[in-house]
Amino acid sequence: MEMPEPRADIIAQKARIVARLTDALPEGTIISDAAETRAYECDALSAYRCAPLAVALPRTTEEVATVLRLCHEMRVPVVPRGAGTSLAGGSLPTADCVVLGVARLNEVLETDFANRFIRVGAGRTNLSVTGAVEADGFFYAPDPSSQLACAIAGNIAMNSGGAHCLKYGVTTNNLLGVTLVTMDGTIHKIGGAHLDAGGLDLLALICGSEGQLGVVTEATLRILPKPEGARPVLIGYASSEVAGACVSDIIKAGVLPVAIEFMDRPCIAATEAFSGAGYPDCEALLIVEVEGSPAEIDEQLAIILDIARRHDPVELRESASEEEAARIWLGRKSAFGAMGQMGDYMCLDGTIPVSELPFVLRRIGELSGEFGLKVGNVFHAGDGNMHPLIIYDANTPGEQEKCEALGAEILKLCVEVGGCLTGEHGVGIEKRDLMGYQYSPEDLDIQMAVKDAFDPGWLLNPAKVFPLASSAARRMAAE
Amino acid sequence: MEMPEPRADIIAQKARIVARLTDALPEGTIISDAAETRAYECDALSAYRCAPLAVALPRTTEEVATVLRLCHEMRVPVVPRGAGTSLAGGSLPTADCVVLGVARLNEVLETDFANRFIRVGAGRTNLSVTGAVEADGFFYAPDPSSQLACAIAGNIAMNSGGAHCLKYGVTTNNLLGVTLVTMDGTIHKIGGAHLDAGGLDLLALICGSEGQLGVVTEATLRILPKPEGARPVLIGYASSEVAGACVSDIIKAGVLPVAIEFMDRPCIAATEAFSGAGYPDCEALLIVEVEGSPAEIDEQLAIILDIARRHDPVELRESASEEEAARIWLGRKSAFGAMGQMGDYMCLDGTIPVSELPFVLRRIGELSGEFGLKVGNVFHAGDGNMHPLIIYDANTPGEQEKCEALGAEILKLCVEVGGCLTGEHGVGIEKRDLMGYQYSPEDLDIQMAVKDAFDPGWLLNPAKVFPLASSAARRMAAE
Repeated sequence: MEMPEPRADIIAQKARIVARLTDALPEGTIISDAAETRAYECDALSAYRCAPLAVALPRTTEEVATVLRLCHEMRVPVVPRGAGTSLAGGSLPTADCVVLGVARLNEVLETDFANRFIRVGAGRTNLSVTGAVEADGFFYAPDPSSQLACAIAGNIAMNSGGAHCLKYGVTTNNLLGVTLVTMDGTIHKIGGAHLDAGGLDLLALICGSEGQLGVVTEATLRILPKPEGARPVLIGYASSEVAGACVSDIIKAGVLPVAIEFMDRPCIAATEAFSGAGYPDCEALLIVEVEGSPAEIDEQLAIILDIARRHDPVELRESASEEEAARIWLGRKSAFGAMGQMGDYMCLDGTIPVSELPFVLRRIGELSGEFGLKVGNVFHAGDGNMHPLIIYDANTPGEQEKCEALGAEILKLCVEVGGCLTGEHGVGIEKRDLMGYQYSPEDLDIQMAVKDAFDPGWLLNPAKVFPLASSAARRMAAE
Repeated sequence: MEMPEPRADIIAQKARIVARLTDALPEGTIISDAAETRAYECDALSAYRCAPLAVALPRTTEEVATVLRLCHEMRVPVVPRGAGTSLAGGSLPTADCVVLGVARLNEVLETDFANRFIRVGAGRTNLSVTGAVEADGFFYAPDPSSQLACAIAGNIAMNSGGAHCLKYGVTTNNLLGVTLVTMDGTIHKIGGAHLDAGGLDLLALICGSEGQLGVVTEATLRILPKPEGARPVLIGYASSEVAGACVSDIIKAGVLPVAIEFMDRPCIAATEAFSGAGYPDCEALLIVEVEGSPAEIDEQLAIILDIARRHDPVELRESASEEEAARIWLGRKSAFGAMGQMGDYMCLDGTIPVSELPFVLRRIGELSGEFGLKVGNVFHAGDGNMHPLIIYDANTPGEQEKCEALGAEILKLCVEVGGCLTGEHGVGIEKRDLMGYQYSPEDLDIQMAVKDAFDPGWLLNPAKVFPLASSAARRMAAE
């Protein structure tokens, strides 16, 4: 992955930059010792690493504003960071940057059950948002796989989803307001505990903007009353086509399961060897979960089972108890770990129209053969968000490049059938140079004009999201 | 309402401007005769009128691009127009502008039931979108009161909602993609029939942008399977406080009605005299509607009725038949017409946290007394979107101004309790100069920087949304 040359003039001034930041902020906020900054040299896309100039770990919005204002004055690039769980390299540092981590802004600032919201520091982990309200019968809906570790700041940056987003939507559908600090240190309150506020909807623009526009320090999140219960069914099919048709029919029938998860044969095999969940030996496996009162669950499952049977399943397993439900989920929840046992892996995030599932799965199988690399598919089928996992060996010379080339082909395929490059992981550096397949030069241009409006110096999260060639002129003009 | 001085140099060149547009476009596209342009001199905020320089009624996206490109070259302001039903003056012309109406772009371009979307020309009316898919068992959810007349283009511009948006969300939650033409005539495809696409989320930014950023010519909309049935209940209470508490409890209980409508005494009285719907004589009336299968409806209604009874209603009326259901809705649906019989009215659109309903209703009553103008309240209570109707007499000198002053006080009250100026009608010219109550100078500044990115010449929909004083420097710089 090509990165722009770090600015030698900034690196040369490291001592002065660190001193100015250290002087302006409470003790322990600025880290510059190489041994300590090492923990920040990559995120979950660990194939790419780069030690930053320094790391700032502020505790308040005002301290975040101070870091940004000083870096803006000194023209030092800033890479915002939540919990560092990005799969797309969204918080990969550059050698001339200050990493601005918001993990210490993690408090619950307000809960309001009557108006169904919670306000938290953006560094709070996803799962601990639910943790703060579940005793009162509420939960926060978006549930990325990394929810134990990932921060709300990163969820907002990438507009994260999760297995349950079919019913509840992704982050943007559950975000009511943010405090955003722009690169010049100005603090903006955007949105709030109400509907659409008039004027331009900057809240939705910021959601998914991958740290290009500002740093989110606080978030007001919609919380929902916990449903009475949930129950999954497991359905096995002899082909991906039939499983895809079953998914389409469930959606068309107007039932709204909270989750429809899909695993293909390579993934089922890996998972079964790893977890012993007792999954059937078949080409495609669906886990469909519904929620509600016992009567609602029964009614929805009756419709789903009826559709599933019409497609002639090789297996159809209901769950009569908590234990059986947990067993159905066991394999799915360990799928990424299981695939990881087979080698290094790269997890893609292309999203396609649901009706294209069978074609895309068949074509991925063909591409897998052509490139000689195994691909397992496990994904949120209800909304067409695929997660093909390419297995490779990072120690075999050339295999990383081959894997990236196959990944690029699969993502181009997603775009060709009317889908897109990324559903919930973001562009980061990983898909940056593929953006030209998704967007015309005019489309990229208008996006970059918006970036200009927020960050005219192009100092925030450099070399991410926009193809380097497309942004070159704007970056040069900004210097 | 102050408007900037129209540019005399542009008006002086009317003949040349009209000739260039007429030459470049098919016959019948450009209208400039004063008798014919009169129909475009106002929208539904008819207290404000201004004849435009000319009106363009293109039939295709390419023709829209031609109109915009030529106006851009000649520095002529453009006022986009859907069906002209804006209650906020969103498409009020200026004397130096070309009105660009998209009503002729009204065809169904694509329907895809498997992937649950429809693509239409943006001039298509809201109700006829559902009309195009209902034979196949689908519908388009957002349902503004004006849905028979209003265009999707205007729904997108104002991010319109409707009685059923409590369950299904407003326009932004049901919009998948648009074709947008920017002021320089560039055609952009934004979003599509898939989730979040990576890069900046311009789709949500455009939704609700009131024609400030570009002209939408096509829209891809989410369609949903029609529920099996729906059933309303009518609940009367002796005070707004108790009715507000009942709404809060319903929301907290986790049932999700499709609609919770609220009417206060002045509105009930007017409606009853007008429609004879048989509403009870009480302070506050709720209509709560739920949807689903018969079993789901029964289950949800049981919970709602239980909550309603705990708050000691003066009336509780279930509907056992279609006729009884229609009778419950009859008064609500004729409420605006009924209030219109009492005099001229101004319809506000402030949105507040649901828990503030009792306080805000009481305070509106006090303000109504202080100003000596009747105010009726009928609104979507489930999401806190209020529609206070101020009754006044436009022919009594000074009463229009008094009404506007009272309206401003009520909207400021909404902002003070943590709400906002507008839920679904937009800012337009009506609430333009109140934006400073909602936003800090820094917040307005960053919104205007985004406007700069899309429309650096400030030619699109002039003198709307942003306070004239705030935008003066940017408009001057653009000239």
